[in-house]
Amino acid sequence: MNDIQVMNHAADNIRILAASMVEKAKSGHPGGAMGGADFINVLFSEYMVWDPTDPTWTGRDRFFLDPGHMSPMLYSALTLQGRFTLDEIQELRQWGSPCPGHPELDVVRGIENSSGPLGQGHAMAAGAAVAEKFLEARLGSTMMQHTIYAYISDGAVQEEISQGVGRLAGVLGLNNLIMFYDSNDIQLSTECNEVMQEDTAAKYRAMNWNVIEINGSDVAQIRKALDAAKQEQERPTLIIGKTVMGKGALKADGSSYEHNVKTHGAPLGDGAYVNTIKHLGGNPENPFVIFDDVKKLYADRAEELKAIVAKRKAAEVAWAKENPALKAQMDEWFSGKAPKVDWSKVEQKEGSATRAASAACLAELAKQVPNMICASADLSNSDKTDGFLKQTHALKKGDFSGAFFQAGVAELTMADMCIGMMLHGGVIAAMGTFFVFSDYMKPAVRIAALMGVPVKFIWTHDAFRVGEDGPTHEPVEQEAQIRLMEKLQNHKGQDSVRVFRPADADETTVCWAMAMENTDTPTALILSRQGIAKLPAGNNYEEARKGAYIVAGSDENPDVILVASGSEVSTLESGCEALRRDGIKVRVVSAPSEGLFRRQSAEYQEAVLPYNVKKFGMTAGLPCTLEGLVGIGPNSKVFGMKSFGFSAPYKVLDEKLGYTGENVYNQVKEFLNR
Amino acid sequence: MNDIQVMNHAADNIRILAASMVEKAKSGHPGGAMGGADFINVLFSEYMVWDPTDPTWTGRDRFFLDPGHMSPMLYSALTLQGRFTLDEIQELRQWGSPCPGHPELDVVRGIENSSGPLGQGHAMAAGAAVAEKFLEARLGSTMMQHTIYAYISDGAVQEEISQGVGRLAGVLGLNNLIMFYDSNDIQLSTECNEVMQEDTAAKYRAMNWNVIEINGSDVAQIRKALDAAKQEQERPTLIIGKTVMGKGALKADGSSYEHNVKTHGAPLGDGAYVNTIKHLGGNPENPFVIFDDVKKLYADRAEELKAIVAKRKAAEVAWAKENPALKAQMDEWFSGKAPKVDWSKVEQKEGSATRAASAACLAELAKQVPNMICASADLSNSDKTDGFLKQTHALKKGDFSGAFFQAGVAELTMADMCIGMMLHGGVIAAMGTFFVFSDYMKPAVRIAALMGVPVKFIWTHDAFRVGEDGPTHEPVEQEAQIRLMEKLQNHKGQDSVRVFRPADADETTVCWAMAMENTDTPTALILSRQGIAKLPAGNNYEEARKGAYIVAGSDENPDVILVASGSEVSTLESGCEALRRDGIKVRVVSAPSEGLFRRQSAEYQEAVLPYNVKKFGMTAGLPCTLEGLVGIGPNSKVFGMKSFGFSAPYKVLDEKLGYTGENVYNQVKEFLNR
Repeated sequence: MNDIQVMNHAADNIRILAASMVEKAKSGHPGGAMGGADFINVLFSEYMVWDPTDPTWTGRDRFFLDPGHMSPMLYSALTLQGRFTLDEIQELRQWGSPCPGHPELDVVRGIENSSGPLGQGHAMAAGAAVAEKFLEARLGSTMMQHTIYAYISDGAVQEEISQGVGRLAGVLGLNNLIMFYDSNDIQLSTECNEVMQEDTAAKYRAMNWNVIEINGSDVAQIRKALDAAKQEQERPTLIIGKTVMGKGALKADGSSYEHNVKTHGAPLGDGAYVNTIKHLGGNPENPFVIFDDVKKLYADRAEELKAIVAKRKAAEVAWAKENPALKAQMDEWFSGKAPKVDWSKVEQKEGSATRAASAACLAELAKQVPNMICASADLSNSDKTDGFLKQTHALKKGDFSGAFFQAGVAELTMADMCIGMMLHGGVIAAMGTFFVFSDYMKPAVRIAALMGVPVKFIWTHDAFRVGEDGPTHEPVEQEAQIRLMEKLQNHKGQDSVRVFRPADADETTVCWAMAMENTDTPTALILSRQGIAKLPAGNNYEEARKGAYIVAGSDENPDVILVASGSEVSTLESGCEALRRDGIKVRVVSAPSEGLFRRQSAEYQEAVLPYNVKKFGMTAGLPCTLEGLVGIGPNSKVFGMKSFGFSAPYKVLDEKLGYTGENVYNQVKEFLNR
Repeated sequence: MNDIQVMNHAADNIRILAASMVEKAKSGHPGGAMGGADFINVLFSEYMVWDPTDPTWTGRDRFFLDPGHMSPMLYSALTLQGRFTLDEIQELRQWGSPCPGHPELDVVRGIENSSGPLGQGHAMAAGAAVAEKFLEARLGSTMMQHTIYAYISDGAVQEEISQGVGRLAGVLGLNNLIMFYDSNDIQLSTECNEVMQEDTAAKYRAMNWNVIEINGSDVAQIRKALDAAKQEQERPTLIIGKTVMGKGALKADGSSYEHNVKTHGAPLGDGAYVNTIKHLGGNPENPFVIFDDVKKLYADRAEELKAIVAKRKAAEVAWAKENPALKAQMDEWFSGKAPKVDWSKVEQKEGSATRAASAACLAELAKQVPNMICASADLSNSDKTDGFLKQTHALKKGDFSGAFFQAGVAELTMADMCIGMMLHGGVIAAMGTFFVFSDYMKPAVRIAALMGVPVKFIWTHDAFRVGEDGPTHEPVEQEAQIRLMEKLQNHKGQDSVRVFRPADADETTVCWAMAMENTDTPTALILSRQGIAKLPAGNNYEEARKGAYIVAGSDENPDVILVASGSEVSTLESGCEALRRDGIKVRVVSAPSEGLFRRQSAEYQEAVLPYNVKKFGMTAGLPCTLEGLVGIGPNSKVFGMKSFGFSAPYKVLDEKLGYTGENVYNQVKEFLNR
């Protein structure tokens, strides 16, 4: 067999494995996997640089799969690379298998991202490309010369997020990003042309991409495209490869099963399966085999890689010798450990908004954490990420010396790109926008939570006190909503997101410290637009590390415990004097994180919120936001927002809606008297 | 003054009013409003067709504002049209004002959509354009000859959703959609070119739009573009108008304040304000004035409109005479009343999945409700909206005789377009996708809830029983998340979204009936992928109309009440026999809608879930999903999912995760014994 024949044989091998694992699982997506086999084979057997002996090597090329339902293609190709066994892929979609239906982050095996919800994977790839350029600007090109590959399908091109990725990768000139668009004209419900009739090449060219159009099943064309893409100096590359859904598939009657919607999301089915495997040169009785010539192809590539990697690693060693300080820094950055931060440098102004307090923290982080990137979706001067920006400058095409990522108005893209930066490794990413727009980001929050990527969400304008901008900009249900992610555990048993809503400027500093120390999960900071009175003198803010704690000045043996997070804590405080004047003993509890509080000892929890003491909660969110802490029943009452907010100055809203010390007094009195 | 001078004077008048109302409110966005004044003036004084005596006339042109922060421009232009008073606009952003910071739906005054979150407004416009074509296909062009105008800014072009709108408006050939892009090169945090360097015209042309590039401040060019757009027969039109942020603004020192980021989101400020108003020909001491020539311009237009509308309405009357049945149908469609549906025609198969049960309902709706449009985001054969599709066909460019909207993979766009269809009036829109992807749709759910648009969300694959597709496709927190919208009230005091998760096929029919009867708020239906055993014989499914009810076969004076929604009800049932064998008296409560249940009388609620009886809940969501019904404390226990799901066949997951009758028995026994 000549070279091309071997390559096609390898692609057929991938098709056989992919179709067979789906058939065995009685569930899955064979058609797309079979169509993409040619490209993935060329990429994996000839282009991807990685170290089989050191699969987490920082210099490895990264491959981000966007359409997670094409996992059979990825698992098959990784099997040819020796990263899955033939036994393992036969467990596709089974309990405990390393081959779940959609790929789940597993860098050692070559899975750089969890995927499934279409579109997010290629945004993560773009983020990884940003991270590489950011690190190259700091460490030099010896250490950062790898390529970020992304693989997308029609779904990603249709998904809204492709607009954000297309725009930003173009603006930033991410020439280290090579994206293959597996264009097979078929999707789940219809042929693509029912829902997409566009000149995709022209669309991406309009966004400053290098676009190459090829036959995506043709080895020579794939090679040529990848070679050209690797040479591109200015722009990200999109290779549009026309492929064939279900390539090589036959129906039970022996006719072609190619280009058929039915092969998208279900096993080929008995007769069709047998005919297809035979047609591809496999044995339906024993399909889980790697052909000898294919074994040799990948063994030869492994040998090649030894030489390539040895050379690269020798250069890295030489660089490290010349740059010991940088090397130490790089190692620390890639360790994923929390950076050392001297929080005593943060100067907080009494009474400031917690968004401003966050800006004070960000200013120090910009100074002290050189591998941190902060982003904003066109709100830096409102979400106060400009505290960070003022210490640096924005990332620009050709100049990644800055550390601020201006994402424009595209919250979901920003989130997924920041997640991709951290998946790349070596950087810490934070991002800001208005809290109400966390709604746009939820799909990214969820996948970051599933993967355990410790990005930092900075969500400001946390309640109706947004004021004049009105109900579309005023979060109500969002705090309860995002705290659901504190109740949802990841597969390590950790709260999948850590959520803080600090009560004043100084508590913000402690929450930011915890955010930076959290290297396991995403952290969300929910921050006020308006200034907040400082908690009583003597408050021990370090207590915030327990998630909820007794605020200074609280009475012993309280008649009632007042519970809140964020600015409502100081609203509660403003009602205490009147209550005490009536002889009522009051404890105030600040609860920046219910989830963290529930991780404390039962004794501590009972000490702060004893079961038998009456509890009154106040929240600018829905009442249920606090029900987990305050309880439900006759000994519990939560005063919260029941409806959307309103457009008016926030002090007017405080009065109209009852967020005043006077109303705290009235509500608590009524509660105690009932 | 010649014509152009008057037009420019009118635009200056809009600028003066816009800047002045922001100045008076001490809050708002003057810059964009001032830049867009020229276009809006031409549109409102020369093109928009509406009936001042009948502002909700079905034949009116519709104007959808996307950037809600440009409300001062809209309010000013509507003031020139006589739809706001000069007094009212002075109350911009104040409590109770008809001029909230971002416009809120108010058709009588010319506000066709609530706006604020960028991008959604133009998606609604595209949906309205679909609705018009759908109705034109049924009623003819006499009744449906109006134009849908959309107004977007840089934010909408950047937002991810522009990809979905661009694609779908192009595919569907929405030539009745004319979109003006106010391109002023400035956004909140930066100049646009920091985050957007694209050939927007080429991008939209690649998506089959008619693109016209003009100077957006030039009256003649605006007219020419609108004339050309009105003539377009095949494609939606995008008019890209280069405009000047803060047009006509001067700083305190008298120098130009144009093209300055600072005019985006804050009042101009004392000196700048005074200089600007003077420069524009206004009186800073008395700025809230309509110039005489401008009054005349709009008065003349009102006269013109009388003639235009009279002619159109005469044609409508003639048409109605010739088509009395159609006219009656049209009136019913536009009444917004719930359609009459004979639900007895729905045949449910025992044991079917509730998604299949939904398909049975949808099939009847397709037959019985001729003004209903059903959509799917490329999942029609999985979310079973194909029950509807099989009775009709998809909407296509040039052929809107079908009633199925194939949205492709773009959940948010689908949602906002469906909302826009209903804002247009005359149609009922439903849409399907996987429940986990409700995350993508949350921003649209929220704005539909705020506006009270009764779209129907069909969310299938409701829990970990998605099975093999794994955690990215398995909802956990989503039910609790979306039920927050049941707890959040709209400004009429209604639960802002009605959420149903029916327990079996027959309960699905009742829930679908309630969904169709709900003309006040969006309704969500959360449906199972897997088959569900029918509830016990004799169950009175009409009881589901109370939100939660006692399932047939329950014991009197129960020792424990088992509570669930969806398929967990039958899982609870499967544990009952063993419990009863132990002499335990058991009541089972199916709770498809907690929100609806809480709207029942206190007596009914206490009768179904008496406070003093122990309650055990089972949910495939987070335990907190049921805490509102089951309670928190020693008499309450909820068995639910604590973590993300897993990839495995769902029956394996049922066993592994404890969703079996056996485990119901064990859990309840342990609960009762503790």
